[in-house]
Amino acid sequence: MALKTLGAKAAAALDKELMSTGAFSIDQLMELAGLSVSQVVYRVHPIHKGHRVLVACGPGNNGGDGLVAARHLRQYGYQPTVYYPRRSKNDLYQRLAKQLEDLDVPFVEDFPEALKSTDHIVDALFGFSFSGEVREPFPAVIKALEETNLPVTSVDAPSSWNIEDGPPKTGLGSSFHPEYLISLTAPKPLVKYFKGRHFVGGRFVAPSIAKKYDFDIPEYQGIDQIVEVSPADEKL
Amino acid sequence: MALKTLGAKAAAALDKELMSTGAFSIDQLMELAGLSVSQVVYRVHPIHKGHRVLVACGPGNNGGDGLVAARHLRQYGYQPTVYYPRRSKNDLYQRLAKQLEDLDVPFVEDFPEALKSTDHIVDALFGFSFSGEVREPFPAVIKALEETNLPVTSVDAPSSWNIEDGPPKTGLGSSFHPEYLISLTAPKPLVKYFKGRHFVGGRFVAPSIAKKYDFDIPEYQGIDQIVEVSPADEKL
Repeated sequence: MALKTLGAKAAAALDKELMSTGAFSIDQLMELAGLSVSQVVYRVHPIHKGHRVLVACGPGNNGGDGLVAARHLRQYGYQPTVYYPRRSKNDLYQRLAKQLEDLDVPFVEDFPEALKSTDHIVDALFGFSFSGEVREPFPAVIKALEETNLPVTSVDAPSSWNIEDGPPKTGLGSSFHPEYLISLTAPKPLVKYFKGRHFVGGRFVAPSIAKKYDFDIPEYQGIDQIVEVSPADEKL
Repeated sequence: MALKTLGAKAAAALDKELMSTGAFSIDQLMELAGLSVSQVVYRVHPIHKGHRVLVACGPGNNGGDGLVAARHLRQYGYQPTVYYPRRSKNDLYQRLAKQLEDLDVPFVEDFPEALKSTDHIVDALFGFSFSGEVREPFPAVIKALEETNLPVTSVDAPSSWNIEDGPPKTGLGSSFHPEYLISLTAPKPLVKYFKGRHFVGGRFVAPSIAKKYDFDIPEYQGIDQIVEVSPADEKL
């Protein structure tokens, strides 16, 4: 199966559709998306090989997925640390942050410093709605992600990459190549520039919606909320 | 570990606390509760041994958990049928039902008739807030559950059982003994009358809340949302 991708506009329309005719609430979708992310981390970073995980959360939905993932990872026994410098005033995000505080998950202010005491990283900074420039305080975070030797799992998109065109040609983000990527609901066109292990998550899409948006629902196994996409599927 | 139980009043207070100081939304909790239920069904009824499952949903939160479980079961490849005769007008329940309709999950009106074409049953009729009498149209459903030879998985409580005192001494429900039970967040006192395989689900409770309500969080494994409780743990 050749994996079809969903451009930025189509992904935004799909998201809107899931929450209108699809009847999902954002709480529900974010819970299932974040759960998928946590399952990828569990799959690629067995807990006995490094239980410290730094979760970098941006100001929007991608960051919300990161907050949910951090909670599940904490429940699995990992020791997450959360970097979430631009907290949304939205009620949902405040609640997701409170849930982490209740589990004694520390929030840190200094990303480069936090990198010194983690085993791996979740990049939940920017998702399919990102475009244009990386705003403060995130340029230093992208730079640190480019420079670190620690493995990074990106949520939906390697942050700073253009959804259609992939990594910036020059400058900030141009040498950011995460080891792992989880595409939520469907891969975005940028996956053709991605060289690591690729997963798809978000096991809630109805076939009728996938058909309408012209993408394939991957073959999830058992009760998995994620599926790894083999390189052979990537010939787009 | 001797499993501590949570009485009806304490369970109601805990639920309220999770959604106030715990900062969870009901959408979130119900999604995770229903996911737990679906994982028990997957564990005890391997899909190749019978993929038809009849999910009986009551009018309240227990029924909502059933609706969510049915959706996940559909995504795993089961063929759920839903009996949901008293639909709540609440927005959340209407959305959960719509999500099932979008997956072409049939809703049936005649429970005894539906029993003829299923392999197993999920009893999500009444949970910890049940007390008193079984109202129409549910007496016939309880009777059918008592009489069927098909295996039943009950959610939080075998429906018609008293949360503290277990099965009715005589009459309707007195001979209803489901094969499987999933207790959500913590077992209720009725578990001492339960003889089947017992699971606990609801992997979202913070240790501070469990401490306040004086129950133990079981040792979940890996990314499981459920844990089977061994009979040795049941000496209460």
